[in-house]
Amino acid sequence: MDNFTFQAPTEFVFGKDTEKEAGRLVKKYGGSKVLVHYGGGSAVKSGLIDTITKSIEDAGLEYSVFGGAHPNPRSGLVREGIEMGRQLHTDFILAVGGGSVIDSAKAIAAGIPYDGDFWDLYDKSAPIEEAVPVGTVLTIAAAGSEGSPNSVITNEENGLKRGTKSELLRPKFSILDPALTETLPQWQTASGITDMFAHILERYFTTTADVEATDRLCEGLMLGILEEAPKVIADPHDYQARANLMWTGTLAHNNTCGVGRTQDWASHHLEHELSGMYDVTHGAGLAVMFPAWIEYTAQIDPTRAAQLAHRVFGVSNDLNDHEAAIEGVRRFRSFLKSIGMPLNFKELGCRRGDIPRLVDKLFTNIDTEGVYAVLKPEDCVKIYEAAADYED
Amino acid sequence: MDNFTFQAPTEFVFGKDTEKEAGRLVKKYGGSKVLVHYGGGSAVKSGLIDTITKSIEDAGLEYSVFGGAHPNPRSGLVREGIEMGRQLHTDFILAVGGGSVIDSAKAIAAGIPYDGDFWDLYDKSAPIEEAVPVGTVLTIAAAGSEGSPNSVITNEENGLKRGTKSELLRPKFSILDPALTETLPQWQTASGITDMFAHILERYFTTTADVEATDRLCEGLMLGILEEAPKVIADPHDYQARANLMWTGTLAHNNTCGVGRTQDWASHHLEHELSGMYDVTHGAGLAVMFPAWIEYTAQIDPTRAAQLAHRVFGVSNDLNDHEAAIEGVRRFRSFLKSIGMPLNFKELGCRRGDIPRLVDKLFTNIDTEGVYAVLKPEDCVKIYEAAADYED
Repeated sequence: MDNFTFQAPTEFVFGKDTEKEAGRLVKKYGGSKVLVHYGGGSAVKSGLIDTITKSIEDAGLEYSVFGGAHPNPRSGLVREGIEMGRQLHTDFILAVGGGSVIDSAKAIAAGIPYDGDFWDLYDKSAPIEEAVPVGTVLTIAAAGSEGSPNSVITNEENGLKRGTKSELLRPKFSILDPALTETLPQWQTASGITDMFAHILERYFTTTADVEATDRLCEGLMLGILEEAPKVIADPHDYQARANLMWTGTLAHNNTCGVGRTQDWASHHLEHELSGMYDVTHGAGLAVMFPAWIEYTAQIDPTRAAQLAHRVFGVSNDLNDHEAAIEGVRRFRSFLKSIGMPLNFKELGCRRGDIPRLVDKLFTNIDTEGVYAVLKPEDCVKIYEAAADYED
Repeated sequence: MDNFTFQAPTEFVFGKDTEKEAGRLVKKYGGSKVLVHYGGGSAVKSGLIDTITKSIEDAGLEYSVFGGAHPNPRSGLVREGIEMGRQLHTDFILAVGGGSVIDSAKAIAAGIPYDGDFWDLYDKSAPIEEAVPVGTVLTIAAAGSEGSPNSVITNEENGLKRGTKSELLRPKFSILDPALTETLPQWQTASGITDMFAHILERYFTTTADVEATDRLCEGLMLGILEEAPKVIADPHDYQARANLMWTGTLAHNNTCGVGRTQDWASHHLEHELSGMYDVTHGAGLAVMFPAWIEYTAQIDPTRAAQLAHRVFGVSNDLNDHEAAIEGVRRFRSFLKSIGMPLNFKELGCRRGDIPRLVDKLFTNIDTEGVYAVLKPEDCVKIYEAAADYED
């Protein structure tokens, strides 16, 4: 186990009707002029925005609303939000939505006090030194942004999707009401499940030895997902299964199960190029890319994939490590298919012919990708090709 | 899953040589006149206190040292510490030791600003409204007090051991260097392992349905302990196994695996009467009491004990729930014995004839004990008797 620092200061308020506490929590964390940021019209139509703004009013605070955040949040909207926040002297941003809305809110929060274009903070040409505090009301269990210091934004001018990270962006509080996720379409539910599974896997594939405690936590969360996911696919109104998945989504990404070990985020980065180019749903892109990445890297070193296969996918100990790894990937894909996820480029809506361009973009500022397996451009070509060509 | 609030604001600084960061961290959290509280002479002899006080000096802060905290920390020493802290205008307490030292430091921290005897805050006749901030340098992986808002103190005047809880007592930071635990005697290492296992079990035995995510986390941490504990018993200097156990001890008690579910602390309370009366090591007392509690309550409802047996102790699914529960307890006792823990009153050094007095003390302010199983005094008599009489 490597040395590490861990802190999870976000106050999570979890359960039925907790969105009614939004006003109290904004006030507790010092907000007085609140920018309520959300995505499409569903949060308005469902009455959620009304519930939240009423609770803000009841707490004696001022607010403005700013909708329009999209999946794969865009730099243009962020700039509008920054402008609005500056004009309104916003001192707290409340994100109401999934990871995209929260990431967009974090970008606005960092951009308001920054004297320059916010993209500098994402292409790392400038550090984040200040940010307006952020809180969230989560409506999609997936990205884990509600408990993380991370944010990912797509720059629509150059098609690049880039992430940044700062403790200043970590939400002060996050309200998690599983009932709010019951009305999500199956596609979004399943994409969210895939995203949280991937967040655990990125931590699981480590070069650090002797990490039994965090290995077991990763495996426990994955076993829980395999148990609960089929329930919400069968019955979207299964509150309890929604609740288990929602809390899993948060723990999958607040680093509880990732401390003291190297992590490998290559699959996420491979996917980011897909959603940057085609605007595909992030989780769906991961369903196509992650199994292909495991299969490819298992040729180099099958150890971790074999342990995953044995402990999470119940693969027999009679197989050797490489056989077990491959059988584990087969079962992983079978799970993804069972919840409605795509497994190849065609099902995802991507073109094989774009692979050279995807790889070029991925290697814009880097020479190699990944830690568990250190990938060169030619490796990534092969992984994209395997993902493109996979047939059931 | 029940509604819940979760927050883990303590900054954990984990790994080799991290004790050298004590001064920096005290300063970060606002301390200027530090009371360094520790237990016996081993922290002095090993040079640990020197390392820490040097780092405090290097940070430009003042300090005084106050040793003498014992296992099952005592009210008399707490009162001395409070007096000393008031005279020195202490604004930060740094606990260097295990759970007993940390609990003692928390009591001093709450007592300094309290206008009355600190025991009021433990027998719940007064609430904790203020406390001096606390940090820790952990030297025993066991109690989890380094990340919890809890503290337990024994009142030597009446032999009562009582706990209190307040966010104000939660450490601002905790330094966890697994190397510091390598010199512990096997008895203390094993008692610590038993204590953390018990902290998970108290959360595991719940009446709340549909808690798959947290169940899997509990099971994962327990599986990790079963894997790592034999390694440190075989080789006390196995840094990596020490590291896995140390982080497990913290997660076992900061409620990561206990949110959204009822918990049952009867076994802890049954044990507190033992260590209150005989000054036995807390973990060793738990090794005697917890299996007896599981066996007794499995007669009422074996469901949870059976799941534990199957998922953690590898008991075959062919057995019915009650059979599985009993076989699970047998394996649990076998594990405890393998690390050197006692399994009955005689091995622990307690007298069967004291059982009526133990039960009387336990029911001083309560009519029933426990949640998963609601126990009356006659139930607790039977559990104590079974623990007293157990033979291998």
